[in-house]
Amino acid sequence: MARINDNYLKLKAGYLFPEIGRRVKAFTDANPNTRVIRLGIGDVTRPLAPAVLDAFHQAVEDLGTSGNFHGYGPEQGYAWLIDTIIDKSYKAFGVDLKTSEVFISDGSKCDCANILDIFDLSNKVAICDPVYPVYNDTNVMVGRTGEASAQGYYEGIVYMPCIAENDFTPELPREKVDIIYLCYPNNPTGAVATKEELKKWVDFALENDAIIFFDAAYEAFITEPSIPHSIYEVEGARKCAIEFRSFSKTAGFTGVRCALTVVPEGVTAKTANGESIPLNKLWNRRQSTKFNGVSYPVQKAAQAVYSDEGWPQVKETVDYYMDNARIIREGLTSAGITCFGGVNAPYIWLKTPGGMSSWDFFDKLLNECHVVGTPGSGFGPSGEGYFRLSAFGDRENIREAVERIKLKWGK
Amino acid sequence: MARINDNYLKLKAGYLFPEIGRRVKAFTDANPNTRVIRLGIGDVTRPLAPAVLDAFHQAVEDLGTSGNFHGYGPEQGYAWLIDTIIDKSYKAFGVDLKTSEVFISDGSKCDCANILDIFDLSNKVAICDPVYPVYNDTNVMVGRTGEASAQGYYEGIVYMPCIAENDFTPELPREKVDIIYLCYPNNPTGAVATKEELKKWVDFALENDAIIFFDAAYEAFITEPSIPHSIYEVEGARKCAIEFRSFSKTAGFTGVRCALTVVPEGVTAKTANGESIPLNKLWNRRQSTKFNGVSYPVQKAAQAVYSDEGWPQVKETVDYYMDNARIIREGLTSAGITCFGGVNAPYIWLKTPGGMSSWDFFDKLLNECHVVGTPGSGFGPSGEGYFRLSAFGDRENIREAVERIKLKWGK
Repeated sequence: MARINDNYLKLKAGYLFPEIGRRVKAFTDANPNTRVIRLGIGDVTRPLAPAVLDAFHQAVEDLGTSGNFHGYGPEQGYAWLIDTIIDKSYKAFGVDLKTSEVFISDGSKCDCANILDIFDLSNKVAICDPVYPVYNDTNVMVGRTGEASAQGYYEGIVYMPCIAENDFTPELPREKVDIIYLCYPNNPTGAVATKEELKKWVDFALENDAIIFFDAAYEAFITEPSIPHSIYEVEGARKCAIEFRSFSKTAGFTGVRCALTVVPEGVTAKTANGESIPLNKLWNRRQSTKFNGVSYPVQKAAQAVYSDEGWPQVKETVDYYMDNARIIREGLTSAGITCFGGVNAPYIWLKTPGGMSSWDFFDKLLNECHVVGTPGSGFGPSGEGYFRLSAFGDRENIREAVERIKLKWGK
Repeated sequence: MARINDNYLKLKAGYLFPEIGRRVKAFTDANPNTRVIRLGIGDVTRPLAPAVLDAFHQAVEDLGTSGNFHGYGPEQGYAWLIDTIIDKSYKAFGVDLKTSEVFISDGSKCDCANILDIFDLSNKVAICDPVYPVYNDTNVMVGRTGEASAQGYYEGIVYMPCIAENDFTPELPREKVDIIYLCYPNNPTGAVATKEELKKWVDFALENDAIIFFDAAYEAFITEPSIPHSIYEVEGARKCAIEFRSFSKTAGFTGVRCALTVVPEGVTAKTANGESIPLNKLWNRRQSTKFNGVSYPVQKAAQAVYSDEGWPQVKETVDYYMDNARIIREGLTSAGITCFGGVNAPYIWLKTPGGMSSWDFFDKLLNECHVVGTPGSGFGPSGEGYFRLSAFGDRENIREAVERIKLKWGK
C-alpha cells in the first residue's frame, strides 16, 4: 500500500498569492471598468536588456546548427558562465571563488528548497518572521516540524521576529540552532545588513557549527556602498555559509529562469559519527543525480548580463525600479504612512495606518484605491500590521497608485 | 552542530559516466591522432527543427518588448503548452487528460527524482536491473535503503532482473511492493512492453495499492504500431500510474530542458491513518513550493514540436536516429554479435562476444576499434556481460564505428 508523505498535510491550505488572486478577481469581476494597479507579487515587468536578447538569440541559433549544437551541459552549469559571474559579481567585491564552488540552477526557489536534501532531519532550523514562505514550507514538507500553532508557527522551527522595534534585525537565537536562513536585502521588509551585522551571524555560526543559508536574490538593488553584496565579504563566511543568488530580479529573468548557489569548499557539516564532510561534494552529488543543468541559451543570456554592453543596460532597469521605490516611499511618507525598505531593495514595507490588520488594509487599498499589495501577515505572524508594496511596476502605474493612496490617506 | 544527510555516503563514489570519461581521456591522451567515435552517453547530436527554432526566437523576441514580456509563469507550465501536448501526443493515442493533470518541468531526471518527495519513506520500491541509475540513487539519497552489497544491490530495494533469458521483461515481484519503476521503451535494454504486458503491471498495482512510475522518455522512438506510447492506453492506469515524458530525446532538447509529468486525478495513496489522498494535489503543492516553472521561450519552443510544420521535422530526426539504430543492429548481427533493442528505442543492447565482462569489452572496443560505448554493468549487476551502444550519432560516424566492429569481430 503506497503511503504519502504525511508532512504535506501539515501545510496551510492557502498559499498567500492564490488568496490575493481570489480577492482581486472578486473585485474586478464586480467592478469590470475599474483600473486595478498591481503592486503585489514581486514580479518584474521591464523587457530584457538588448545585449541579453542578442546573446539569447545567438545561442538559439547555435542549436540550429550541427557545429554549434549543444546537448547535455554540465549539471553544475557551464564554466564560462560561472567564471564570468565570479569575475564580475564577486571579484568586484573582493570575493574570490573557484569555478567548482558555484552551481548554476534554474531558480533560487528551487535551490533554497533543494539544499535541504543534503542535511539530516535532526538539524534545528532558524528562520526570520516575517519571511519568504518557501523557507518555512519546505522544512515542513521534509518533516522537520510538528503541526502549526493557531498563530502559524510550526513546532520545531525557531522563529526570529523582525519588527520595527528591532529595526527588522533578528536577534541571535538563544537556543542552539544548526541552520540559519538569512535574506539580505530582505524580502519582505527591505532591510539590509551591514558587514558588522553579518559578522555577528558568521561568528555565531562558526561557534555553533551551524550553517547559514544566505539568500542574496536582491543584492543588485543595493544602492548604499557600505552594504555588503555577498556574505563572503565577511571573514569566516567561507567556512559556514551557502549563498543563493538569482538573475530573476537582477536582470528580469523571472520568466527565463537562471540562478546560482555558492557552496565554498571550506563549508562542512558532520556525519552521525562526527566526521566533517564538505557540503560542496554533497551538493555536487545532489545536483548531478537529480538535476540536468540549465538551458544552454538561458546560460548564454545570463552571461551577457555581465558583458560590457549588457551590464549598463541591466543596471538602467534596476535603477528604474529603484526610482519607483523612491517614489512610493516618498509619496507614502508624505501621506503620513510609516515606510521601511525601498532604499536597497525593491520592496516598501509599510506600517498599516491606524493599526489596521494586514488583510483589512489589503481590502481597503483594493476597494478604495484599486491598488493591490501583499498583506504582511502572509509572510508570518510578525508581519501582522505591515504591508508590502513592490516597486517592479511601470512608472505611470506607480505614480498613479501613489496619488490614489495620497488622496485617501494624505491630510 | 549541523548534520549532513548520511545517506549520501552510501552512494558508490563513481557514477558511470565519469569513469567512462576518465578511460576515454587516458586513451586519447596517449593516442592524440586516433579518431575516437563516441556512442556512449545517450545525448542527441542533431540540430533543433527549424519550426522549433522559429518559435524559440519569437519567444525570446517577446521578452524584449513591454507588451509581450513574460515574467513568472505558472509553476505547472503554461496551459497552451499542456493542452497542445494532450491534444497531439495523448488524444492521438486515445488518452484524454485534463490540463491540471499535466505538469511541465525542466527534465525527467528531476521529475523522477523529485516525485519521491511526496511519498513516505516506508514505501517499498521495486526497480529493474539493469536500470537508469537515477531511480536507484535517489532512493538511496532519501534514506529508503541500507548499505549496498558487494554486488551493488542496496538493502531494502526490490531488484527485478531483466536479462536475455526473460526477454528483458521483469517478473511481478513476489513480495509486496508499493512503488514500481518501469521504463518503456527501456533504457538501457531497448526492450518494449506490449499492452498486455503493461496490463499485468497495472492489475498488480491496483491489487496491491501500489503506484507505478512509468518513464516514457523514449516513446517517440516506437516504430511498431502495436506498442503503447503511454501507460494510460491501459485500462486502470489512471488510478495507479504517474507517467514521465521528455522533449530531450524526442526533439533534441537535452540542452534546452523541457519535460512533463502526468499525475491523473484518480491516482491516490494513503496517509498513516489510511485516508486516500490524490497525488495530483500533493505534486501540485510540491511544484508550487519548490519550483518556479520552465523558461517561457523553452515552453514556446516545446509547443512548436507539435505544430503542423514542426512535427514532420522532428519526426525526420527521430527516423534518422532509428536508421542509425538499424545500421548498428544489422552490422553487429552480421558480425555474429547478439543484439537486442534498436527497433523501438535508440539503444542497442548487445551481449559481449565470448562472454567478456562489460568493462573488458569497453576497453577492447576503445583500444582496438576506437569506439566508446557504455558497459552494461554500469546499469546494475544484471547488466554484466552486456553493453549499450547509442544511435544518437552522425550517420558517417555510425557507419564507420560499425565497420570497425565488423572488421574486428566479423568472420
